[in-house]
Amino acid sequence: MTAPVNAELSASLQAARQDYAALLDKKLKLDLTRGKPSAQQVQLANAMLALPGEQYKAADGTDTRNYGGQQGLPELREIFGELLQVPASQLLAQGNSSLELMHDSIVFALMYPLPGGQRRWSNEERIAFICPVPGYDRHFTICERYGIEMIPVPMTADGPDMAEVERLVSTDPGIKGIWCVPKYSNPDGTTYSDETVRRLASMKTAAPDFRIFWDNAYAVHHLTDEEVQVADILTACADAGNPDRAFIYGSTSKITWAGAGVAFFGSSEANVKWLLHCTAARTIGPDKTNHLRHALFLKDADGVREHMRKHRELIQPKFDAVLNIFDQQLKGLATWSRPKGGYFITLNVPDGCAKEIVRKAAEAGIALTPAGSTHPYMDDPQDRVIRIAPTFPSLEDIEVAIAGVATCVRLVGYEKLASAQGLDATD
Amino acid sequence: MTAPVNAELSASLQAARQDYAALLDKKLKLDLTRGKPSAQQVQLANAMLALPGEQYKAADGTDTRNYGGQQGLPELREIFGELLQVPASQLLAQGNSSLELMHDSIVFALMYPLPGGQRRWSNEERIAFICPVPGYDRHFTICERYGIEMIPVPMTADGPDMAEVERLVSTDPGIKGIWCVPKYSNPDGTTYSDETVRRLASMKTAAPDFRIFWDNAYAVHHLTDEEVQVADILTACADAGNPDRAFIYGSTSKITWAGAGVAFFGSSEANVKWLLHCTAARTIGPDKTNHLRHALFLKDADGVREHMRKHRELIQPKFDAVLNIFDQQLKGLATWSRPKGGYFITLNVPDGCAKEIVRKAAEAGIALTPAGSTHPYMDDPQDRVIRIAPTFPSLEDIEVAIAGVATCVRLVGYEKLASAQGLDATD
Repeated sequence: MTAPVNAELSASLQAARQDYAALLDKKLKLDLTRGKPSAQQVQLANAMLALPGEQYKAADGTDTRNYGGQQGLPELREIFGELLQVPASQLLAQGNSSLELMHDSIVFALMYPLPGGQRRWSNEERIAFICPVPGYDRHFTICERYGIEMIPVPMTADGPDMAEVERLVSTDPGIKGIWCVPKYSNPDGTTYSDETVRRLASMKTAAPDFRIFWDNAYAVHHLTDEEVQVADILTACADAGNPDRAFIYGSTSKITWAGAGVAFFGSSEANVKWLLHCTAARTIGPDKTNHLRHALFLKDADGVREHMRKHRELIQPKFDAVLNIFDQQLKGLATWSRPKGGYFITLNVPDGCAKEIVRKAAEAGIALTPAGSTHPYMDDPQDRVIRIAPTFPSLEDIEVAIAGVATCVRLVGYEKLASAQGLDATD
Repeated sequence: MTAPVNAELSASLQAARQDYAALLDKKLKLDLTRGKPSAQQVQLANAMLALPGEQYKAADGTDTRNYGGQQGLPELREIFGELLQVPASQLLAQGNSSLELMHDSIVFALMYPLPGGQRRWSNEERIAFICPVPGYDRHFTICERYGIEMIPVPMTADGPDMAEVERLVSTDPGIKGIWCVPKYSNPDGTTYSDETVRRLASMKTAAPDFRIFWDNAYAVHHLTDEEVQVADILTACADAGNPDRAFIYGSTSKITWAGAGVAFFGSSEANVKWLLHCTAARTIGPDKTNHLRHALFLKDADGVREHMRKHRELIQPKFDAVLNIFDQQLKGLATWSRPKGGYFITLNVPDGCAKEIVRKAAEAGIALTPAGSTHPYMDDPQDRVIRIAPTFPSLEDIEVAIAGVATCVRLVGYEKLASAQGLDATD
């Protein structure tokens, strides 16, 4: 950042202090913490409230009201096979949460040897995952719960720093996985380049049972006309001679309803067979009636695409509002992502300021995701990254909240600058 | 069994052989393997196909279409709290399968120390469960998958042989749990006596983190006007100073829809807190829209009771048909349960004959649950128990299938008797 000269800085700091005092007076109570769809967004799927209606049979005659069908309803797997780049025969439609499927994949890998593995992970001396940062806190929580060491690798404009990833996985057999949100990544909105996908698929790994956890949470969640595509990881892995490398996850949580949607797992035939073997002891099958409800409502892949454009209409103005305020108020002081899709904006504040900004915002009644959440062990070593989740509040609330956040960034940022330049920051 | 004199036996065997030949000629294709509701039964809940209809908010204003609400919808927990004898505040409404909840409770106990436990189960040298026999094969499968040793204990008319259970758990700290289906047990329809419940709750256990897995799958699944009650295990445990001993499970799989219902977990406050901590890394919450759908359809505990009487009208004739055929054809040769509720009839055939009878039935196109399934490791040491599941087929098919089963019992039973008495069984 370009440091203003002392007089300018003094004035900036003074203005920020006045604005923060005014912000406190507003006694706000606003929440920007989680990537949660708004009431208007979930409303878009309200036709599902009365579905499946008269119907209860799947296209193949299966009675969705009864037991069975561990793989999920074929017609729904067809729709999302196309969108998640997985053949429907290798895509499972399951419960209401892809996080569950990721969690369970790891628990099952701890308990049952994976295809290509020599032993179950719990019998390994040490297990580690590569965690591109900034990343998704719930991924990190799963690792932390099960004693999986997390190795941060920085994100670039093309995805994870592949030279570093290749170096790590080629020599360390304890590294069993990497978390990837390949499209419109959480939180910085990056889409992995074709070259990144190719290198992930083809890199040498010291662990024979290394897995890419491909959390394609935002596969169809565009914010621009560009509708960015990511390369097909499953085919890339197969082409590179590593057919069992990728575990692919997706869900309708941010398409239809969050918590009442359908989650998907896709992979190679061997991995799908492995997962079905593991889950056979756990359940007699997923909620096929909800699968049917979704298939009837969404109709086909184009139906999903069309539905997502309605989401875009609702949330793009919120993203624009955030970016406008940042553009107006934070140039030269901070940087931020301009995502083409997904649910988040990453705000990079001056080093050492993120925690204090989040604290100041909380004091002003604006709840932000805790600083550090974007990094394993809550440890953002530069204390720099703040994740902004603009979807849930109203546009009006977003504008008020983000103006408040900008004030906090200015306050803490200018104080830090002033202190570094020996100005009296207490004045 | 009373052995007929030789001439009588010869005639019986001859008749059985003729009947079996005629049975083969019928080229049947009937399935009595699983405890699955019929199409008529799931049809009873068809009003749910268009629910929740216009509504999407819970009684407390929660939007069921969005994230959150890890404990499940309060109004549904109220309804089933009464029926499962658990305060609603200690009852969780979760996904579509109670088997999942049992599986996950065990996996979490392997991974996280339980309240009262000194370490997680996977750090114990050995873990064992008591398995009352005959019992439910899916319980045994979970144990087998995770290396949990199974110790069979015989069922009596009052539940498990409590003297044997008390002897085992008091001395063996490796015994961490017992599987119980306390009402209308799978497969023999037994309801635990009040004294059995009291002894389970109060017995001394060498393991400080011993748990009763109380699978109350048939809590409201009556077949007679008696509507049998089982004593309240949670209160019994608390009264005995063992408040954290019972994990209680239930579901609407056999009330509304199998696979599209709602499952419940109830326990002490400490255990519920433990489970919520474990699941917090796994999911952002269950499908609350399905909870609302169920609450609107079932209305209250009396609504559930009334609904279950409609199930009884459909399935009691099927149970009666089975019992009538057994009464007419198998007296003196086999014994069977006369359940007052639940989903199964246990048929006890002459020792050493169950496998062969199931094989003969399969040859005649009648699929039965594999002999041995009612015992850990598929090992019924007397090869005697066959589980009959009469709910799914039509009454007509049940009559045909059970007459066929009776023929197989007569064929194999009389052959065995004849062989024991030195008669030529090949004639």
